[in-house]
Amino acid sequence: MADPRFFSVRGPFTLARLADISGAELVVGDVERTVFDVAALEAAGPEDLSFLDNKLYLEAFTGSAAGACIVGAEHRERAPAGMAVLVAEDPYRSYALAARAFYPEEAEGRGIHESAVVDGSARLDEDVVIGAGVVIGAGAEIGRACGIGAGTVIGPRVVIGEETSIGAGASVSHAIIGARVLLHPGVRIGQRGFGFAMGRKGHLKVPQLGRVIIEDDVEVGANSTIDRGSGPDTVIGAGSMIDNLVQIGHNVRLGRGCVIVAQAGVAGSTQLGDYVALAAQAGLVGHLKIGAGAQIAAQSGVMRDVPAGAIVCGSPAVPLKQFFRQTAVVSRLAKKRGT
Amino acid sequence: MADPRFFSVRGPFTLARLADISGAELVVGDVERTVFDVAALEAAGPEDLSFLDNKLYLEAFTGSAAGACIVGAEHRERAPAGMAVLVAEDPYRSYALAARAFYPEEAEGRGIHESAVVDGSARLDEDVVIGAGVVIGAGAEIGRACGIGAGTVIGPRVVIGEETSIGAGASVSHAIIGARVLLHPGVRIGQRGFGFAMGRKGHLKVPQLGRVIIEDDVEVGANSTIDRGSGPDTVIGAGSMIDNLVQIGHNVRLGRGCVIVAQAGVAGSTQLGDYVALAAQAGLVGHLKIGAGAQIAAQSGVMRDVPAGAIVCGSPAVPLKQFFRQTAVVSRLAKKRGT
Amino acid sequence: MADPRFFSVRGPFTLARLADISGAELVVGDVERTVFDVAALEAAGPEDLSFLDNKLYLEAFTGSAAGACIVGAEHRERAPAGMAVLVAEDPYRSYALAARAFYPEEAEGRGIHESAVVDGSARLDEDVVIGAGVVIGAGAEIGRACGIGAGTVIGPRVVIGEETSIGAGASVSHAIIGARVLLHPGVRIGQRGFGFAMGRKGHLKVPQLGRVIIEDDVEVGANSTIDRGSGPDTVIGAGSMIDNLVQIGHNVRLGRGCVIVAQAGVAGSTQLGDYVALAAQAGLVGHLKIGAGAQIAAQSGVMRDVPAGAIVCGSPAVPLKQFFRQTAVVSRLAKKRGT
Repeated sequence: MADPRFFSVRGPFTLARLADISGAELVVGDVERTVFDVAALEAAGPEDLSFLDNKLYLEAFTGSAAGACIVGAEHRERAPAGMAVLVAEDPYRSYALAARAFYPEEAEGRGIHESAVVDGSARLDEDVVIGAGVVIGAGAEIGRACGIGAGTVIGPRVVIGEETSIGAGASVSHAIIGARVLLHPGVRIGQRGFGFAMGRKGHLKVPQLGRVIIEDDVEVGANSTIDRGSGPDTVIGAGSMIDNLVQIGHNVRLGRGCVIVAQAGVAGSTQLGDYVALAAQAGLVGHLKIGAGAQIAAQSGVMRDVPAGAIVCGSPAVPLKQFFRQTAVVSRLAKKRGT
Repeated sequence: MADPRFFSVRGPFTLARLADISGAELVVGDVERTVFDVAALEAAGPEDLSFLDNKLYLEAFTGSAAGACIVGAEHRERAPAGMAVLVAEDPYRSYALAARAFYPEEAEGRGIHESAVVDGSARLDEDVVIGAGVVIGAGAEIGRACGIGAGTVIGPRVVIGEETSIGAGASVSHAIIGARVLLHPGVRIGQRGFGFAMGRKGHLKVPQLGRVIIEDDVEVGANSTIDRGSGPDTVIGAGSMIDNLVQIGHNVRLGRGCVIVAQAGVAGSTQLGDYVALAAQAGLVGHLKIGAGAQIAAQSGVMRDVPAGAIVCGSPAVPLKQFFRQTAVVSRLAKKRGT
Repeated sequence: MADPRFFSVRGPFTLARLADISGAELVVGDVERTVFDVAALEAAGPEDLSFLDNKLYLEAFTGSAAGACIVGAEHRERAPAGMAVLVAEDPYRSYALAARAFYPEEAEGRGIHESAVVDGSARLDEDVVIGAGVVIGAGAEIGRACGIGAGTVIGPRVVIGEETSIGAGASVSHAIIGARVLLHPGVRIGQRGFGFAMGRKGHLKVPQLGRVIIEDDVEVGANSTIDRGSGPDTVIGAGSMIDNLVQIGHNVRLGRGCVIVAQAGVAGSTQLGDYVALAAQAGLVGHLKIGAGAQIAAQSGVMRDVPAGAIVCGSPAVPLKQFFRQTAVVSRLAKKRGT
């Protein structure tokens, strides 16, 4: 059960209702049976709903005391006796839908905290929640039902769409932010990019005259940094998910639904098509084009364009099959000559 | 000498007292000789205590003007004339003990700054020091003698143990923090993890219903990020040391005394045994088990479980010996075929 | 055109004046022609000045509607009809000079915000701009015309030189900062370094008694971290440029004009000569000496000293030529044995 200090649970729901909410099919169990909470397989009890999405946890599934579980069709026969079984095409997605019913997102706090410093020319739409010590600059526009966490600084004339939520201690400048965006604590958006002319008599800063455009439904993880463009804008496409400690350089363009995992970085002016996935600690040099749906493995270093749909790995990155061959051949040679 | 603007020195101490404090044996020098400060080998003068711990600095040792020095037994004969010599099994540890006597940790400031925003339902124990602009949410509990740096945000119902110190501009939510913990400036604890069901019609966020548990005596470096669990908790074991810009994903469990060096990352649900060391910029994929005492070299990318006590290196990571062989064989082949 | 919400443009300027400002030679076009703005090649219109610096954008150049363009001599013949052409030895540098004329740096805001908490013993020189919620500790000294962004925390007795600018939500302690330094939002300067004696009975913290010295004209990117020295100082040489999410360990010394790209890290006590370039996500282990002008490629892992002027690549890093040979030989072998 989630710690009630931090989370408040809704419900209960019948299995029939949960099947409906989650888009899963109840194949074992009574439609009227009541479920009170969600829990991981090992922690779940008879009143909880759980899920199996990763074969690594198959044993936990077969030994689970969960009252009900969402699984793929291939595992339904492995369910222990007494467990209600809901079969879903994408069990994790179905679980997400059910869990969101038990734990809908709720903003903490109400109204504008008296310690916030909101410039008189800023425009705050209805139902905004502004935390303690927040600073909102001149001419900024904060959309309906936005929440701004304590200590966050919104620069002059920044525009933020409806229902966007920003964590504590973040800063946003030179940016246009869409609706339903989630920026985590410590995010840095809109500072000048790393643009200068190198020279032995001193590096010369180049004015950075673009903005950061964050489209709707984007998430940006804690302490990640997105520099504004140098002239063109830096653009994060709708629905993209960016994890913690990610670096996005100036003029980068992400398509829709991209996924950038923790500590990855994208250098200036590189463009990602829709639904590109960049795994943890990977890096893309500047001025590349990464085609739609391409996948970049963790710690890869990409120095050339990647075609749509390709999977690349390694530093320097090569197609995945080639990477496996390279790894295998080096391993074999090392064994042969090893002592 | 440490800059008196930033540090105030205690003492002086006799060599006898320093031998006692540091657990080192005075093998050369007068027990009554007085030492006034600590300093690095190259900066130390006749009234300073220094130490030699790394062979790279042997030359600095033999040429040092330090009045006294803590060294391993193997180097004692190399001490210059006139230097008092203290022999220790672990010279760096003994130096640490001595240096802590000269420079004990002291909190700056006193009491609760008038600009702090402390919710009326929060409980602050005695001797807490709360900096300017700090925000403490409803129902939070701050233990005896804690220090909270300026501008830091403590979320509702967070619990913090005794003598814990948090730097400036940090944020903590959904967390239970132990005693004598040190969180550096900009640390982000407890935000929702990177949990969503991917899909071409849009990624769907999964509620993150766990907490962050930080046990006693943990240190977390500047701007590091620790996400809360998705259902299970994220747990940082007692005495673990985490450097700057480290990413810890949801549900990760660190054992006791783990060491995670700067810019390393641990993906979701991976478990580290006691005293695992993860060097800088290394990465662990999710759902792994890393055995107690394992060591992961810098920049390694670990994709499989690592047994207790193993040392692995490379991306993908292999046992250290195998890594050296691989490196050697590739180097040899490259020379052969090179032009 | 830059978004007037965020940038205000000066000018217009004649081509003669722009040639003068930028140090470029007007080889095609009327000296009296007037230019109103700068823009990227693809966005520029007949009243805009653009530049070509990267062959990747040659096509954009030949198709550009820009009224004037700064190019290298080798491309001048490719300019489309009607475009005024300015030839420069370093087109990016010349563009920077021109762009700075159109968009000089300007501090937002004036004076000391009433919500700032400035200790009575701090000394603020004339024309400082202190944002909302800023905290300035006892005895700190802030030089003439400095700007401190909202929510930033300056520790006791920190010294900051003239015309230095610090972004929002940063923290600085135990540091002496030069003139014309730019610290981006979320930067963490001066916290204790990762210094402890490891031990199975618990790791023992070693007092960190040095400072951070940042010389003149340094830039430090968003959310980067620079730890104070352990006894010696951590020093960032004049004119060095540090990108976002970079880690600089205790006692590190950077020479003049070093460039450290995003997510790179330098471990404790390593020394970089003048004008060393460390590309993105590269790492240097501790206690190294990197010679002046050396270049470390992206994602490299450097475990040995690097001589002045060398270019190294790979993890572990080797000279660039050797890296290319290694990559080539592995690629060839993998193809031979591949299926």
